[in-house]
Amino acid sequence: MNKSTIPQGTRDFGPETVRKRNHIFNIIRNIFELYGFQPLETPALENLETLMGKYGEEGDKLIFKILNNGLDNPAKYDQAKADFEKILEGKNVKGITERALKYDLTIPFARYVAMNYGQLSFPFKRYQIQPVWRADRPQKGRYREFYQCDADVVGSHSLLNDVELAYIYNDVFKKLLIPDFKLQINNRKILKGIMQVCGVEDLEKKIIVIIDKTDKIGIDGVIKELEKEKIDAEKLQKLISFYNFKTQTFLNEATIFFLKENLAGSDIGIKGVQEIENFFEMIKQSDVSDLTSKLHLDLTLARGLEYYTGIIFEAKAPEKVKIGSIGGGGRYDDLTGLFGVPGIPGVGISFGVDRIYDVMEELKLFPAEVHIGTQVLFFNLGEAESSYALRLMQDLRNQGIRCELYPEQVKLDKQFKYAEKRNIPYAVIIGSKELEEKNAVLKNLKTGEQQVLDKDKLLSIQY
Amino acid sequence: MNKSTIPQGTRDFGPETVRKRNHIFNIIRNIFELYGFQPLETPALENLETLMGKYGEEGDKLIFKILNNGLDNPAKYDQAKADFEKILEGKNVKGITERALKYDLTIPFARYVAMNYGQLSFPFKRYQIQPVWRADRPQKGRYREFYQCDADVVGSHSLLNDVELAYIYNDVFKKLLIPDFKLQINNRKILKGIMQVCGVEDLEKKIIVIIDKTDKIGIDGVIKELEKEKIDAEKLQKLISFYNFKTQTFLNEATIFFLKENLAGSDIGIKGVQEIENFFEMIKQSDVSDLTSKLHLDLTLARGLEYYTGIIFEAKAPEKVKIGSIGGGGRYDDLTGLFGVPGIPGVGISFGVDRIYDVMEELKLFPAEVHIGTQVLFFNLGEAESSYALRLMQDLRNQGIRCELYPEQVKLDKQFKYAEKRNIPYAVIIGSKELEEKNAVLKNLKTGEQQVLDKDKLLSIQY
Repeated sequence: MNKSTIPQGTRDFGPETVRKRNHIFNIIRNIFELYGFQPLETPALENLETLMGKYGEEGDKLIFKILNNGLDNPAKYDQAKADFEKILEGKNVKGITERALKYDLTIPFARYVAMNYGQLSFPFKRYQIQPVWRADRPQKGRYREFYQCDADVVGSHSLLNDVELAYIYNDVFKKLLIPDFKLQINNRKILKGIMQVCGVEDLEKKIIVIIDKTDKIGIDGVIKELEKEKIDAEKLQKLISFYNFKTQTFLNEATIFFLKENLAGSDIGIKGVQEIENFFEMIKQSDVSDLTSKLHLDLTLARGLEYYTGIIFEAKAPEKVKIGSIGGGGRYDDLTGLFGVPGIPGVGISFGVDRIYDVMEELKLFPAEVHIGTQVLFFNLGEAESSYALRLMQDLRNQGIRCELYPEQVKLDKQFKYAEKRNIPYAVIIGSKELEEKNAVLKNLKTGEQQVLDKDKLLSIQY
Repeated sequence: MNKSTIPQGTRDFGPETVRKRNHIFNIIRNIFELYGFQPLETPALENLETLMGKYGEEGDKLIFKILNNGLDNPAKYDQAKADFEKILEGKNVKGITERALKYDLTIPFARYVAMNYGQLSFPFKRYQIQPVWRADRPQKGRYREFYQCDADVVGSHSLLNDVELAYIYNDVFKKLLIPDFKLQINNRKILKGIMQVCGVEDLEKKIIVIIDKTDKIGIDGVIKELEKEKIDAEKLQKLISFYNFKTQTFLNEATIFFLKENLAGSDIGIKGVQEIENFFEMIKQSDVSDLTSKLHLDLTLARGLEYYTGIIFEAKAPEKVKIGSIGGGGRYDDLTGLFGVPGIPGVGISFGVDRIYDVMEELKLFPAEVHIGTQVLFFNLGEAESSYALRLMQDLRNQGIRCELYPEQVKLDKQFKYAEKRNIPYAVIIGSKELEEKNAVLKNLKTGEQQVLDKDKLLSIQY
């Protein structure tokens, strides 16, 4: 009996799913390249020490470690046992697991930039579309093996990069037919400024974690959680005043006025406001498409505890699908410091492909082509007919038409059923009569319509 | 200091390498699809038990096993220690390593077919282009993480499939501009027949291993090694007579006559000859391209100890590059028996992408496009100019032109140097004069030639 399974949290992708996923990947890849980003691929395996300590204590636990091969060496037996006991104690030790599976694309990218620092020309614009692995508990929409899609510009402080990345979101979602996405923007410097003017800098990390939940628990929930922290009443009220301030679809003068007035005491806060102001202004000036209408300044956007230090982005799916974030990113000051090369700033974005897939499935946005693999099935009516079919198919393929010959000479019924199951739209039937007259019957399997065509006509049809 | 490294036997692929590899992958993928093959992707991770025991004892040792996460559970401490000790003794135990990295694409494909048997329609034609991992000792041309490119038809005995796969080799290598490859053919049934008529069936495996070395040690070396085996002198001489028989470029009557006469005592041998005869005949009848001239019947072709039972293929690089095999495959009787679904025959081929890459590098066969990422660099001459550039670039991108703006306003020197290093062929320079007159200077960076163009002209250039 067949009892084969695949590991929890992993997936096989059959033909139609691969075609749908490639539709998404190809559009993202194409737009990245139109903006001057270059492809990079790093191995699935990294040295364990490259990854450990980069994702916080919780992250470390979710890294898949690979057992060294050749452990059955009696000379190293005792050391291996000692190493293993440390692992059982929850300690990280690379002795018997020197390698691990990559957990995200950012750290391997940082490792690559540090390793190749002398050879790269900056600004370095790279994109990377590859799988990553996390030993998370699998659940709906959360996998242990999944693709990330990142684009980063490093080695440049210019806001022009941030602006171009916002355009990339716009272009990708337009091409994917998800034009009614929202692009939420905030700036980590504004968040820092708010903490400063409210006098709660010591609680910054805690507060950011709470604010980050706005999406899930709403602004009222956030305020309730903030009230639980031991914050002085006056400070708390000031803090809440920021999160109660309703920002507008597009940055308007009232917002700028509010922020400038209320962040006056914080240099970094004011710098954040200026960056946002410049960012919006640059987009307003250059916008030939309709990015402006998608932008929302959202003071509650925090992007977790990540290493961001400037503008942060979050792309949201259309509200009707209730899927939430379909992409995010932001600006950071130091990509490679952890790898011994300090002072490389950058800005990056990523696309959440699994969620984008769900949005497109729900809204039926995949084009008809993704359902069609083979375009023409040649029926098998005998040896001489098949030999003729083989020759004809070579001509069709030279024209880019995807075709195949049913390999066995079986009842037509069975061949029709195969075409139907495979969703092949056309059949070519060559019997002894057609073989003799050097033509073929072309049948449209959707409409049932059929016509007798010579070779040239067969080659000129739009399949 | 930066001391980052990547694991031995793995590679980073920078922009140009990715473009070159994608050139190869895209051609292979496109041809597979023209022949009706459908894409399949299986996870990197498989359950350890899916893989163990499928690749022989040596293969088992080369499988990368993944340490379970959450081992720091005191309740399971003793069991984990016992499991680890078994690993130290060289035994396979899945207790603490339930998952492993896939070692090839065939076993995961077999597992997929077995798991989804009821849903698939047969014949099932799938292709798969994915990385695999092996804990082999790294050396020139041998990696621990590398891509395989496979296409298989399962659920059909028809030789038409074998013929179509031979055409795929021809089409792919033609498109890659490696038309002077050779396609060596043999049939496992002929090998079996030879063993039978020579009365050395008991030594079949040993002899196949020796014959398989013909490429490395030559026919004389093979004969020398055969002589070392304790084979009866008369039997040995008969065996050697087969391997001394010179086959012709294309199967001719003399070869068929020789084989039929000398394999007369073996039913399976004669069946193999008939299959080869039919195969060559079908290709001769249907060949509109020039596959016929590439085919070589080679009685020394054995394809190791794999599970093949019919026709076997090996594609060889042009002799001048001394790279040897760039692809191989064959027919088998039973893909999924090990997974509880017996009786599914098939035939498959694969391409050795790393070696094909080396052939193309050596013969300089990559097209010029692979060297070019961004086509046009917009120079940065100030804020207003950049804002105008941003707008212009959106128009260029809508026409499919890959362009980027240098993000910092620095000396032109530095911007030229960036274009040069990145191999960008064109620059657009917009100064205050051009901004005012709403035009731009387009400079061909190879020839130095430059012209002043308005927006429409800029959009109509062939970059």
